[in-house]
Amino acid sequence: MAGAVSGDGVAGELTPEGHVLPVRVYHEDTDFTGVVYHGSFVRFFERGRSDFLRLAGVSMTALDRDGLHFVVAEMALKFRRAAVFDDLLKIVTTPAELTAARAVLRQTARRGAETLVSAEVTVALVGSGGRPARFPSSVSALLRPFVTAG
Amino acid sequence: MAGAVSGDGVAGELTPEGHVLPVRVYHEDTDFTGVVYHGSFVRFFERGRSDFLRLAGVSMTALDRDGLHFVVAEMALKFRRAAVFDDLLKIVTTPAELTAARAVLRQTARRGAETLVSAEVTVALVGSGGRPARFPSSVSALLRPFVTAG
Amino acid sequence: MAGAVSGDGVAGELTPEGHVLPVRVYHEDTDFTGVVYHGSFVRFFERGRSDFLRLAGVSMTALDRDGLHFVVAEMALKFRRAAVFDDLLKIVTTPAELTAARAVLRQTARRGAETLVSAEVTVALVGSGGRPARFPSSVSALLRPFVTAG
Amino acid sequence: MAGAVSGDGVAGELTPEGHVLPVRVYHEDTDFTGVVYHGSFVRFFERGRSDFLRLAGVSMTALDRDGLHFVVAEMALKFRRAAVFDDLLKIVTTPAELTAARAVLRQTARRGAETLVSAEVTVALVGSGGRPARFPSSVSALLRPFVTAG
Repeated sequence: MAGAVSGDGVAGELTPEGHVLPVRVYHEDTDFTGVVYHGSFVRFFERGRSDFLRLAGVSMTALDRDGLHFVVAEMALKFRRAAVFDDLLKIVTTPAELTAARAVLRQTARRGAETLVSAEVTVALVGSGGRPARFPSSVSALLRPFVTAG
Repeated sequence: MAGAVSGDGVAGELTPEGHVLPVRVYHEDTDFTGVVYHGSFVRFFERGRSDFLRLAGVSMTALDRDGLHFVVAEMALKFRRAAVFDDLLKIVTTPAELTAARAVLRQTARRGAETLVSAEVTVALVGSGGRPARFPSSVSALLRPFVTAG
Repeated sequence: MAGAVSGDGVAGELTPEGHVLPVRVYHEDTDFTGVVYHGSFVRFFERGRSDFLRLAGVSMTALDRDGLHFVVAEMALKFRRAAVFDDLLKIVTTPAELTAARAVLRQTARRGAETLVSAEVTVALVGSGGRPARFPSSVSALLRPFVTAG
Repeated sequence: MAGAVSGDGVAGELTPEGHVLPVRVYHEDTDFTGVVYHGSFVRFFERGRSDFLRLAGVSMTALDRDGLHFVVAEMALKFRRAAVFDDLLKIVTTPAELTAARAVLRQTARRGAETLVSAEVTVALVGSGGRPARFPSSVSALLRPFVTAG
């Protein structure tokens, strides 16, 4: 992947380092301790993955019409520093592994040069009734270039 | 409705005054200003309506199988006092009006004798494609006693 | 207000019609009925108000250091049409009234030319202990031009 | 810990196996794929930890007055099966390790005998400015019996 591919301005952009999504911290993301609630980063990371897929050309709405949904199978998070209201964060999403039925993505939430939170997320695809499904070849073909480029 | 009908201990109870659901305030419900985020009360009120319907005998899961969903058509909220972390609130839900396709419910969030937030909520039923649908007669029959008792 | 004033690309922009913020619908915003959860629009509208204030020059972080916070006093919502996953919405925020201690804002969530949800929101300022506070003159001065321009 | 110690009916109960909190799945917890959003379990687990601390006698509100807050330092989650709207889950929280400045808790979300999601969560205490703090001896004393009982 050379250079940056951008979307409509609200889906972040694909960079050589991975997909980068700006995320603003609003009231809804914080809690009474004064900082961002840890669960909010889980939502931020999902936004990053969704917009990475969007710019990679994978339509979750189209998969949904076929009864297929991405699910999170495993997620490991490290919280290093706090974010606060008004912060403008960057969510960086980098695919790390791709098999027939699973993808592993590394994600970070950054403020400037600081990494606040890092995550490793394993996603899988499920079909009707929640059964595991292999990635359609069209999906694998769209994702593979990002893994090999890592 | 005479006396209190209780569920399995986590669905609140039906009282002569209306349905009463205890709701605890957790980190997720607060924001950095130190109090409960206004949008959290919207979630609390939905929990109250859902558990009122549950104890009234209306199964939203069964309606879902018929492609029918309740939607909020209008909602007016007044925020009088703040709630804080650790508060144990009561969400009181009282049906006020019932027509062939709409129900109006009055709801309050209380802490002890204090009313913190009050709401008037109009709900409707939609079918496939989001089209308005009349209440099935079985649903109307279950809800009517609560309105006339008000 | 003539022409559009934009921020850093993630705070929307000030237009003659009001503040316009693009908002993408993610998994977190939807529910099992297949459409956007009604409470998500409450969060979207708060994002719109926050970014309107940001571009108008009102810093809620600075107010917080003085122990002052905006609170929602009243909110009336009409839900007309549903939004779905992947939708790119616009949240339009237009100040309508300004007194010494209250501001009324009209807000809509739009998809293209369609208005999906509309709201009228009354906000007030509270100081230490949750007591109502008058708007500092610096805040009123920043907000007044948007009201008179309406 | 012998037998069950219960709170006011909405804080779950302490059992020999750990703290058990019933959690109902509402609209807010699900997403358009038809099942519970993965991030909702992160909120459910926080409710479990908060109510475990409550019944163990640790007041986060009192700690807050001393400028001390629990934060999540690390969290690893495995999602095995989906939950759906209307499900009545049990969140089981079992302290596994306790040092001077960290506690590790194992948590599961169960539906009947099935484990849907499991988590290992490391929490720490931070003081003013987000600096790591040792657990006050009163807090350690309250938590230690639960770890040694494991």
